[in-house]
This record gives sequence, structure tokens and C-alpha cells, in this order.
Amino acid sequence: MNRISDTQHISVAFQGEAGAFSEQAARAYFTHPIRTIPCAAFSDVFRLVRHGSALYGVIPIENSIFGSIHENYDLLRKSNLFIAGELKLRIVHALLANPSVSLRDIRYVYSHPQALGQCDRFLESLRDVERLAVYDTAGAARMIKDQRRTDAAAIASVEAARCYGLSVLRKGIETNRKNFTRFLILKKAKTLPRGSAKTSVIFSIQNRSGSLHKVLGIFARRRINLFKIESRPLIGKLWEYLFYLDFEGCETDIACSRALTELRRISSYMKLLGSYPKGKTIMRTPQ
Amino acid sequence: MNRISDTQHISVAFQGEAGAFSEQAARAYFTHPIRTIPCAAFSDVFRLVRHGSALYGVIPIENSIFGSIHENYDLLRKSNLFIAGELKLRIVHALLANPSVSLRDIRYVYSHPQALGQCDRFLESLRDVERLAVYDTAGAARMIKDQRRTDAAAIASVEAARCYGLSVLRKGIETNRKNFTRFLILKKAKTLPRGSAKTSVIFSIQNRSGSLHKVLGIFARRRINLFKIESRPLIGKLWEYLFYLDFEGCETDIACSRALTELRRISSYMKLLGSYPKGKTIMRTPQ
Repeated sequence: MNRISDTQHISVAFQGEAGAFSEQAARAYFTHPIRTIPCAAFSDVFRLVRHGSALYGVIPIENSIFGSIHENYDLLRKSNLFIAGELKLRIVHALLANPSVSLRDIRYVYSHPQALGQCDRFLESLRDVERLAVYDTAGAARMIKDQRRTDAAAIASVEAARCYGLSVLRKGIETNRKNFTRFLILKKAKTLPRGSAKTSVIFSIQNRSGSLHKVLGIFARRRINLFKIESRPLIGKLWEYLFYLDFEGCETDIACSRALTELRRISSYMKLLGSYPKGKTIMRTPQ
Repeated sequence: MNRISDTQHISVAFQGEAGAFSEQAARAYFTHPIRTIPCAAFSDVFRLVRHGSALYGVIPIENSIFGSIHENYDLLRKSNLFIAGELKLRIVHALLANPSVSLRDIRYVYSHPQALGQCDRFLESLRDVERLAVYDTAGAARMIKDQRRTDAAAIASVEAARCYGLSVLRKGIETNRKNFTRFLILKKAKTLPRGSAKTSVIFSIQNRSGSLHKVLGIFARRRINLFKIESRPLIGKLWEYLFYLDFEGCETDIACSRALTELRRISSYMKLLGSYPKGKTIMRTPQ
């Protein structure tokens, strides 16, 4: 069942192709050697961890420009996996090409539409270059390599350059430097963190005047810091909302444990997603 | 200056090409005849409204799968425009092709990667069909038309089919039917709504334990309903957060006006985005 012992590597599932930002997040998070498993869809990441084919899963949960990824919150809500950790990664885009190809040879730039958009100022500075949209950034890098293109470059991570043996023509070409993605590390079994911790819950309450105020009072009375609160209207359910809440502390701390008991009592639905060590922010691409 | 009187049509700027979902939102919102102005970027929409080249702007602000669009919240925060209205639109995807082309002729399907992903179950049901990613859904429709393709289809709105004279091979092909986007209608001058209203603010507070609880107390004490609350960490500013808050009522109502005065006093930053009529949800593509 447990394949880790076979290889001495921790298996980590992620969505995307080799060199994707999720894989980069996995490599930045774990200090032990890891074996990453690319998946086509986010739901595949959950499935592999649930079935034990991967010990951990890594999923993006929010981005500083594009917001929370409700799709992954939904998968978390429906799964029985726990959050084991978190990591914020600065998204640094690079222009990649086959070795010996230089910037002036480039006529076509391939990437995910969001990445092309995020690098528009740099792309405008290039002359006579056509921008072409493909599924994902790492996929663009792989295509440039596979087709041995000498007239084209891909926008992807420096990690993708390493994966596919491409050279980095230019790095940090994104217009907005404040582009961060927060990733969650998922695990099948619950583990409790030591030291400085964070706990995430999803809950639902009727939107009666003051009901959210009452919920926050549960935490304020115990001087528990909040890191994130977000309401999400439930479609088709007038006046009912789902809330995402991240707060400081571990679920087994006395104050937190009492707050959770109280929250469970006044909410119509509550799911504890896990307690985990407060994550660091990775500013630079690991070299 | 005011070009509306010239044409008797209200001018409305939106991001995307003709037939884009934002344009569809504009058409569903206004009861008067409108003249829509396509823009390359969201910032262009703000610019046109600010300079008076368009009387209104329409921007997406959140999606039921992909969350809040922080980029547009940032543009709102930096602009002097006001929210004049809102609308929730169900995103219905359709498979479009040139007239006389039938489903069995299709070998290639073009669309925005998100739209291709949202229709994956339908696409899997087709045999030997290659999926190709382009910048936007309406752009895919235009390309199919311009190139007179007989082997390809585009995934876009029914509105796009009408724009480019394409036929609708299949409608409602999205896997998840709970795909809604909330759009905001922007205006240069502040107008106050009559009847049932909603007010949006952005504010910032220090993340001291209980400070958000104190903010919500301002509204709970006055029995003001909340529609949305979302925290967004300010990058580089430890412990400081921006909050998006939508509540019931108009800024000139006595209770709301007092709540806003109190909020301004305890927050380190506050911007009133506007009071506007509570929007309806458009479930069906207008026929």
C-alpha cells in the first residue's frame, strides 16, 4: 500500500505538467526528497491521495490577483483529506527557448492566456512577436522543446526550463510583481502541528442580521486572530452562505477547541479542514 | 462631450470581443438601446468611462467557481468611478459552427482554456476531436467565421453565434450548471438607487484580535444584513488586510450612513464604492 518505502522518496501529486508552479510549490515545501506525480485534473490529486497512490497532494487555493479557487474549496469540502501545510509562492515568469536560440530569433511566444496577460508589458517591448495561447505554462515549454522550435519561446517557470532543458532568455518578466499563489499540502491522515499553527474551517450560517457577528464574537472573546474570512453565496439557496475561515492556533488548543465547539453549535454546517504549521512565503525561484 | 445624445444609444464599455459574456451582461442589464464598446483590457473600460467616451462600463467582479477578481477590485479602488448596478449571469456555453457544418464534421474545438475545461464532459463525448486554446470565447467564434472553417467549432455564448452569423450545434454544454458570474455596472457620477439597495465598501483594519468583530458589530447593532465579506491580505504588509464588504441598504439611509461614519473612524482606510439597486440573476441566455 505504502509505496514510499520502496523508493525512499515522498510521493506528491499535483495538477499540471512537470515544471508547473504546483510542482515548484511541492519542491519548495518538502525538505525530504520527493517524487512528484502529475495529474490532469485537481480531482485526480484528491483521488490519488485518498487511494494512497500519493502520500501528499498539492493544490493552489488562492491567488493575489485572481482570488480564491472555489473549485478546490469544493473538493476539500467533499473529501476526507486534511490540510497538512501551506506555502505562498511568488509567481515568477521567465521566457524560455531552446539552447542557442536568442531573443531576436523569437517570432512566437506560447503560454497560458493568464501568463501571457501577466507579462503583457514585456511582450509589448518585443517587436513583431505573435502571442499564442495554450493550456498551461509548463505544457508550452514542453512543446517548444518537443518541436525543437528555433523561432518560438514559452513563458513558464525557471523550473520548467530545467525540466525540459531549455535556456532562460529573460527572468521576472511579469508586469505585477505582487503575484502570489497560496498552495495547500493535503494528506489522508490528520497530523497535528507543533509550534505556531493555523486552523481552517468551512461553515454555513443563515444570513440573519448579526449571525456572522455572533460567529466572530466566538473568536474575539478568546483573542484568537483571524487570517482569512470569505463569504460565498450558495447558489439557489437564498440567504445561505458558506464561509471560509482561517484562524491562529491548533484545534487541540483549549481556546480553539472551545471556539470550534461553539461554532459547530450555531452553524448549520461545519467542516474542520485541519490544523497545520503557519506557512512561509517563497519569494524567489529555488536555484 | 456626451456622445449619447448623438445616437440615442447608451454607450457601454466592456472587456473582450463582440459576443463576450460581459457584453451579454450589458445587454441583459439595460432596458434602453445600448451601443457596446469592446476594450482590450479591464483598465481600458475604466479609462473610457472616466474620459466620458462611454457612459457606463461593465466588469466581472466574481465567479461562482473562480472567486473574486482582485484585479478589478484594485481598479475600482484606484478609480473614481461608482457602482451603479449589478447583475448575475449564468454562464451558458454553446458549440458554434458555420452554417451547414454539422456535429460529425467537427475535428477541432477552439475556446478559452477555462471554457474548454468547463465543457470537458461534453467534449469527451465527441470522438476524435482536438481541443485548442485561444484568448477568449468570442474570439474563437470570430476566428471560425473569418476562416470559414468547416472542420472546426468554437465554444462561446449563443450571443456570439448571433454576432458572427454562426449556428448553434449544441447549447448548455457546460459540466457544472452552477457557473455564475457577477458583473458590476460602473458610472462616473454617483447616482442613488430607489427601492431595495445594496452598498459596497473596501476598508482596511489592523488584524488585531477582535477588530473585525468590532467592525461587524457596527452593522449587527443596526440590524443591517451583510451580503459579502472577504479578507485579502496586503502583500508585504504583515497583519494588514483589505476587506470587501457588501451590505443591505443605501448610503443615505440613516442606519447605513451612521454605520459608514463609524466604520470610517475605526478603519485605517475606507472607500465607498457606491449604493445601487440589488441585482437580478439572469438564468437564461436572452433569445
